[in-house]
Amino acid sequence: MSRANLRQTPLASKALGFEHSAHLLHYVRPIARRTMLRTACRRSYANGRSNRPGSQPQPTLRPPKPLVYARPIDPPTAADIKAVRAAVSKNTVPWAKTRIVIGIVFCGSIIYSMFTQPLQHTEAASIADRDTLRKRESGVTDSSPMRLRMEDMIKSKQKEIVTALEALDPSHKFRTDTWSRPNGGGGISCVLQGGNVFEKAGVNTSIVYGTLPRPAIQKMRVNHKALDPDVDSLEFFAAGLSLVLHPQNPMAPTVHLNYRYFETMDRDGVCNAWWFGGGTDLTPSYLFDEDAIHFHRTIKDACDKHDRAYYPRFKSWCDKYFHIPHRHESRGIGGIFFDDLDEEEKDQEQLFSFVKDCLGAFLPSYIPLIEKRKDMPYTELQKEWQQLRRGRYVEFNLVHDRGTAFGLQTPGARVESILMSLPLTARWKYMHEPEKNSREERLLSILKSPVEWV
Amino acid sequence: MSRANLRQTPLASKALGFEHSAHLLHYVRPIARRTMLRTACRRSYANGRSNRPGSQPQPTLRPPKPLVYARPIDPPTAADIKAVRAAVSKNTVPWAKTRIVIGIVFCGSIIYSMFTQPLQHTEAASIADRDTLRKRESGVTDSSPMRLRMEDMIKSKQKEIVTALEALDPSHKFRTDTWSRPNGGGGISCVLQGGNVFEKAGVNTSIVYGTLPRPAIQKMRVNHKALDPDVDSLEFFAAGLSLVLHPQNPMAPTVHLNYRYFETMDRDGVCNAWWFGGGTDLTPSYLFDEDAIHFHRTIKDACDKHDRAYYPRFKSWCDKYFHIPHRHESRGIGGIFFDDLDEEEKDQEQLFSFVKDCLGAFLPSYIPLIEKRKDMPYTELQKEWQQLRRGRYVEFNLVHDRGTAFGLQTPGARVESILMSLPLTARWKYMHEPEKNSREERLLSILKSPVEWV
Repeated sequence: MSRANLRQTPLASKALGFEHSAHLLHYVRPIARRTMLRTACRRSYANGRSNRPGSQPQPTLRPPKPLVYARPIDPPTAADIKAVRAAVSKNTVPWAKTRIVIGIVFCGSIIYSMFTQPLQHTEAASIADRDTLRKRESGVTDSSPMRLRMEDMIKSKQKEIVTALEALDPSHKFRTDTWSRPNGGGGISCVLQGGNVFEKAGVNTSIVYGTLPRPAIQKMRVNHKALDPDVDSLEFFAAGLSLVLHPQNPMAPTVHLNYRYFETMDRDGVCNAWWFGGGTDLTPSYLFDEDAIHFHRTIKDACDKHDRAYYPRFKSWCDKYFHIPHRHESRGIGGIFFDDLDEEEKDQEQLFSFVKDCLGAFLPSYIPLIEKRKDMPYTELQKEWQQLRRGRYVEFNLVHDRGTAFGLQTPGARVESILMSLPLTARWKYMHEPEKNSREERLLSILKSPVEWV
Repeated sequence: MSRANLRQTPLASKALGFEHSAHLLHYVRPIARRTMLRTACRRSYANGRSNRPGSQPQPTLRPPKPLVYARPIDPPTAADIKAVRAAVSKNTVPWAKTRIVIGIVFCGSIIYSMFTQPLQHTEAASIADRDTLRKRESGVTDSSPMRLRMEDMIKSKQKEIVTALEALDPSHKFRTDTWSRPNGGGGISCVLQGGNVFEKAGVNTSIVYGTLPRPAIQKMRVNHKALDPDVDSLEFFAAGLSLVLHPQNPMAPTVHLNYRYFETMDRDGVCNAWWFGGGTDLTPSYLFDEDAIHFHRTIKDACDKHDRAYYPRFKSWCDKYFHIPHRHESRGIGGIFFDDLDEEEKDQEQLFSFVKDCLGAFLPSYIPLIEKRKDMPYTELQKEWQQLRRGRYVEFNLVHDRGTAFGLQTPGARVESILMSLPLTARWKYMHEPEKNSREERLLSILKSPVEWV
């Protein structure tokens, strides 16, 4: 066997620009190296023999696969092997060392990934891939799986909202970042900062395909008995639209909204449990009762279309959720909040339609308020009070909000999208107390005992 | 028995301004009312008989206590009792209803407190009371219990530090708030905000006497085997000095310091387990290597006096503790951090002396830096960068700092003292990235991989 033979050995490493995997042998442990050399020699020997003129082919169960060595060669002798080693040690190939290093990194990373990438990831990605294909081939219709319909709905609402907000301040556009998750899904973050109307505004959608480990399933079973208790992991899908708008003008209220859908699936992507969650709430620095009433009335109307018990139930849930225990006050003047609404509540179609209507109520609930307040005159002290209230907003979001905590703890999460909810600026003043009988004091007293606005 | 007799009945309620507890009888349940009336009648009858002229006193074991009824009266007849009730129902006393209401509130709150105040609280307070007495009678000397010596030491260091900081900016004084805890202990919060040198500066001491419930004891046993595992609750004492200084000038670094002592005691106040914890660390927005070196060198010198292994060990502990996982960066450029140093480490006297020296090293480690940087010129963009770094400071303190979380969860904690660590102002900008090869970028790269400064 000559050096020329070795050169004709095609290997996967060719793709990386080097044809001579033999160079790698130097870096393999001696025993493995010896075994590899022996195997290579045996295969080329067998190949040579079966093609030798006049010899009878050996009986085999299936036709011998065509081997890749270019021409018949003699069985390797001890001298051949020595020649191979000599060729290897002489490094006669250009940039051989560089190639070796690249090769090691490439092969190493493949081997490493085989051991470190859990199987589920590949499978979760495949549900995501199949969903992508399905969307491309047949679009999203009323008969598509709910996860595709929810994704489609929140993305179109996101566009609609961003367009409406940009219309308020034509000189400032939202910046759009599209990102994707390695195992399926991704998101669109639309953020505007330092505008004339909004100090900071974020409207984000995110889609996640992933795998729930057993402890997470056990936890979720408390609210969702449909979840199989006997599996070690479950595929899941989550889609959500989140929005936080912090206006410049202290007379204009901050608003937050989040609607989300969650489902677990078997390995073929068939849904086995699902639920909706969400809500919206208002956080004014200066309270105008008429604004509070309008905001609550609009949401209540959307709720009442579906169930007259929803608004009172979800309003008090909201007051409970957006509470800052260490300050003994609410973050704002509330709105609605709900979670874990599944088939025990209503059927999937009814709940989807409810969530769609809630989302649809957002612009009518907020746009009139921001239009009325965005250009009102204000003093420096009123701006400072707004900044102090922004500080409380930060306290709630970083200390108490379960969504933010979950996001920050999720490995590989997009932190900038999670923390877009924080205001551009905030302030903490030691022992600040508003003046007696001031508007600031009245707001505080209302935050301490929530009001029924409608 | 006449109305006049009833008027002479002195009761504790007199202190509240009403002499006629009989009015209260209307509000006591009928059976109890009957029993009380009967007892009052029997006592006045016995009193009347023993003082009747010519009658023999009944033999008693001790001389009869002088009863409070003013003059001998006849045993009450059914008509007497009727008269009492009639007098009561007529409400002939001025402001009788008001007195009744005050009486109910007073008695009710006493009864309520008997059921709701757990026994331990009274006892914890009594250790605190005994300590207060001890300090008043014999002062604090080297032979006093460690808890008194630590309290004494941190309070005198607090004064020293506040004086030194006020000297930097004579036009701004610290505001001092002294507060006390209902069950023993209290604190002194010294805060300055909006100064020329410091945007916000807080130097606080706090002393806590309290009771640890069983789950907390179990948790602490992981690090402190000396804790008795078989008790349901344990008295504890904690004393600490906390300091955070946020300078105005972005060239001057923020600094944090906290040294604390913790002990558990039996019901007589005898210590059965104790430990020290603490540290100090620097958070610059603009890094001057010489400042970092000076700060670390000064702390290292204080550590080396006690144990040459301390600085490297506590420096790396600090790098680990002040880490913001979701940002993959440190809060600042470190310093030292340690916790749970008890008799397994060194004896109590040695550790107290170590902590005292660390505290003593604070002014020499920081004052030269602030003096050099407080009046340096800076641009608006540099001020903005400082505000963004302040945002990260808030993220660490509210999301990750165990001390802050513990404080905020403690019922009755003084939130303003805990959150004085937050800067006066902070900023969050979506997707902010410093310019290539800028000072801001260099700082970020150092925060991503801590440096050995000395």
